[in-house]
Amino acid sequence: MGGKSIQELKLGDWAQFSKTVTEADVVLFAGVTGDFNPAHMDQVWASRTRFQGRIVHGILSAGLISAAIGTRLPGPGTIYLSQELKFLAPVRIGDTLTARVEVVEILEQRNRLRLGTQVRNQDGTLVVDGSAWVMPPEPEQRG
Amino acid sequence: MGGKSIQELKLGDWAQFSKTVTEADVVLFAGVTGDFNPAHMDQVWASRTRFQGRIVHGILSAGLISAAIGTRLPGPGTIYLSQELKFLAPVRIGDTLTARVEVVEILEQRNRLRLGTQVRNQDGTLVVDGSAWVMPPEPEQRG
Amino acid sequence: MGGKSIQELKLGDWAQFSKTVTEADVVLFAGVTGDFNPAHMDQVWASRTRFQGRIVHGILSAGLISAAIGTRLPGPGTIYLSQELKFLAPVRIGDTLTARVEVVEILEQRNRLRLGTQVRNQDGTLVVDGSAWVMPPEPEQRG
Amino acid sequence: MGGKSIQELKLGDWAQFSKTVTEADVVLFAGVTGDFNPAHMDQVWASRTRFQGRIVHGILSAGLISAAIGTRLPGPGTIYLSQELKFLAPVRIGDTLTARVEVVEILEQRNRLRLGTQVRNQDGTLVVDGSAWVMPPEPEQRG
Repeated sequence: MGGKSIQELKLGDWAQFSKTVTEADVVLFAGVTGDFNPAHMDQVWASRTRFQGRIVHGILSAGLISAAIGTRLPGPGTIYLSQELKFLAPVRIGDTLTARVEVVEILEQRNRLRLGTQVRNQDGTLVVDGSAWVMPPEPEQRG
Repeated sequence: MGGKSIQELKLGDWAQFSKTVTEADVVLFAGVTGDFNPAHMDQVWASRTRFQGRIVHGILSAGLISAAIGTRLPGPGTIYLSQELKFLAPVRIGDTLTARVEVVEILEQRNRLRLGTQVRNQDGTLVVDGSAWVMPPEPEQRG
Repeated sequence: MGGKSIQELKLGDWAQFSKTVTEADVVLFAGVTGDFNPAHMDQVWASRTRFQGRIVHGILSAGLISAAIGTRLPGPGTIYLSQELKFLAPVRIGDTLTARVEVVEILEQRNRLRLGTQVRNQDGTLVVDGSAWVMPPEPEQRG
Repeated sequence: MGGKSIQELKLGDWAQFSKTVTEADVVLFAGVTGDFNPAHMDQVWASRTRFQGRIVHGILSAGLISAAIGTRLPGPGTIYLSQELKFLAPVRIGDTLTARVEVVEILEQRNRLRLGTQVRNQDGTLVVDGSAWVMPPEPEQRG
């Protein structure tokens, strides 16, 4: 079940993870994080904002990046060091998001990788852009 | 229910949001994001890693920052532009986290604020450090 | 709160349990089981399959059979020995399912019952067929 | 994201999926399925049964088999035809389960596979045994 070590990865390797974001996801995410911002939870309030309706928590989209990193590339055993996120477009309930992670820099001596991390919706619109530093699992620490 | 406009905020203003992270939170967060990394979900696997047991998803901690921003400072109506996160220490199931956000830069003309964003556990250990750019609500868009 | 003993049951006795399967149920079921098959979670992906959209996890339907057995017939205290399931038709989000269990064989000496187990949707379509072996509670073990 | 076609699989191919079953999983599973059998939900009641405490829903363990089939072998696009389950030993809250699926029969003409399906706990105890028939995705239906 272990992920890939730095020796097994090269520039340009990528993986992705997709799911539809449901209203249930938004409710549960609010419950877990405490983020009850009415922009996400109150349709009446949200309908008066510039987004004209509820939008999905930006950090929920970031969770899909984490899923792609922690389950696919590099996968289990990876240590997540940092993440930069730019929220570029609103995500709506019912959107199907695809998080894509790609190896863009390799520091083999320090066992560190930089990943480009992007989330797009079903129309291909880039909703979250950014990058992450991770430590891929070392062979003896893959579990 | 609206948040504070840029005219109502000054450097050093801060707010915080706290919660205990339960096993149920981790289960639900995995369900919402799809992040079934065994580091979070499989106690047997996780006990063989350097963390010697399950750790909480790093992005879940980021959700508490979002809660502080979206519900307290600047509060409802804020547009989240970007977030930088450094994951500095593992979070365990049962830890009580406090996310603190503080105004560190004000670009009044462009209606943008930079917030220092930190999450600490019950022992005061800094588990997530970083900063965010946001647009506070304009008076007419506070909902 | 105890269920019925084998002496209190006869061939043809039956019970049923119904519920509507919501999108939230599917999200939570995926979180509990780890079954993030895109057939259940990704509307865009699923729309390109023969089912032309998301379908509900088959094992979720089996859970309704377990509910009928464990809460109604024989009820609390029953020991579930085995279950055979045939998945005959897709279940959609929003379908209302009825699980029906019926006594079809009694081995009184060994305290074992075979139950016919069927799940139908709101149109009467048989979506899951099968049977189960159970041990009904003995009077002193009904809790 | 598509799974493997029958041409890409051979006898003995296998995959597995593991997770720790938490109290939250049991609560959520009960909520989704309606299976509020006190054997799973009522510690006082359950402490008087032969199991001397709450046990996990048997069908929840079956959900891990579904996760292994639907996400790993054959993976996305697989059609689940049938599942036989024998519940051999109780599962406790906190147990870490591993579902293993293995190709044991191939009917290439009819595009059907039989999988041996087993779930073991952290001690290696076989808690669920059985087998499943599935239709692996055809190349043009892998989504």
